[in-house]
Amino acid sequence: MLDEIIKKNRSYRRFAPVNIDCSTMGKILALLRYIPSARNAQPLKYIASCNKETNEKIFSTLKWAGYLTDWDGPSPTQRPSAYIVILHDKNISNDNYVLTDAGIALQTILLKSAELGLGGCTIAAIDKQKLASILNIRGDLEILYVVALGKPAETIEIVDVKNDIKYYRKNDIHYVPKRSLSELIYAIIE
Amino acid sequence: MLDEIIKKNRSYRRFAPVNIDCSTMGKILALLRYIPSARNAQPLKYIASCNKETNEKIFSTLKWAGYLTDWDGPSPTQRPSAYIVILHDKNISNDNYVLTDAGIALQTILLKSAELGLGGCTIAAIDKQKLASILNIRGDLEILYVVALGKPAETIEIVDVKNDIKYYRKNDIHYVPKRSLSELIYAIIE
Repeated sequence: MLDEIIKKNRSYRRFAPVNIDCSTMGKILALLRYIPSARNAQPLKYIASCNKETNEKIFSTLKWAGYLTDWDGPSPTQRPSAYIVILHDKNISNDNYVLTDAGIALQTILLKSAELGLGGCTIAAIDKQKLASILNIRGDLEILYVVALGKPAETIEIVDVKNDIKYYRKNDIHYVPKRSLSELIYAIIE
Repeated sequence: MLDEIIKKNRSYRRFAPVNIDCSTMGKILALLRYIPSARNAQPLKYIASCNKETNEKIFSTLKWAGYLTDWDGPSPTQRPSAYIVILHDKNISNDNYVLTDAGIALQTILLKSAELGLGGCTIAAIDKQKLASILNIRGDLEILYVVALGKPAETIEIVDVKNDIKYYRKNDIHYVPKRSLSELIYAIIE
């Protein structure tokens, strides 16, 4: 079962124009209390938006799909229905483990979204100063990532890496080259 | 369903003396091809061990449970049955995003383990030089984390944070203080 969700969880960047209400967001956020954290410090905080106007403002701070250089991100009718902003509370911790905590949170958010029939994309290319101002984020909270969420409206296919890991688009399909398992596994000691 | 797995996934450090065969490890590792990676770089590599002798050698390089200062880690009859070592291939990437990729991998490994009735613990306090020598790890692969896996043999309970996030042990129960959801959520914009 988990296998299906993990495989279904692709990085979607084009969405159907549906609303996500905040009770759905609550189902995702509720799980974040139960995830592991380095030294149990729990330095992450979260902002969720399912408000159309705020979503447009958040959208204006994001850069999409670095490898698709001729594409500025989803058109107005294909934009995300919700966002989760992941923040690092610097009063709690001040080391790089927070980036691993963020990965744990990201995978949890995206897997739960997939289970709910949603999908999304993690974005790191953010105008952080602008976003902090839009969302009134205190200076001691650092923006790490934004997760864009919605109902996926694109086809994504995994292909084997040939020369390059850059994802690309062809005939309206988004292709993602993934390394083979044998490349990822350095050794199995039986 | 996913909620149950996420809640079941605690950091276990005492295990029943059962074998984990490498086909079980294969079920976990197979999923790591399908997880997100920053810029799709996929710089992580993995070593799995389910060999008793190698496991003992890996054990000798690990420091357990920083907050349990009077405990040196599980006794010989309560040790992990398997390990997954997470490596950063520095030929592929050279930035901190790899730590977020590692978090994504860790949560994936631990959730799949929980689904299989196993459990484990991520360890960052590693004698990396010694471990690299034991496992013949090339110098261009940096050890990031070790995940210890086994059949959990301890009771873990989540409690609300009062003054301190340090986990503690009392009457053979391991207590983990978790921050409240209201502390984690900075804002929900409806």
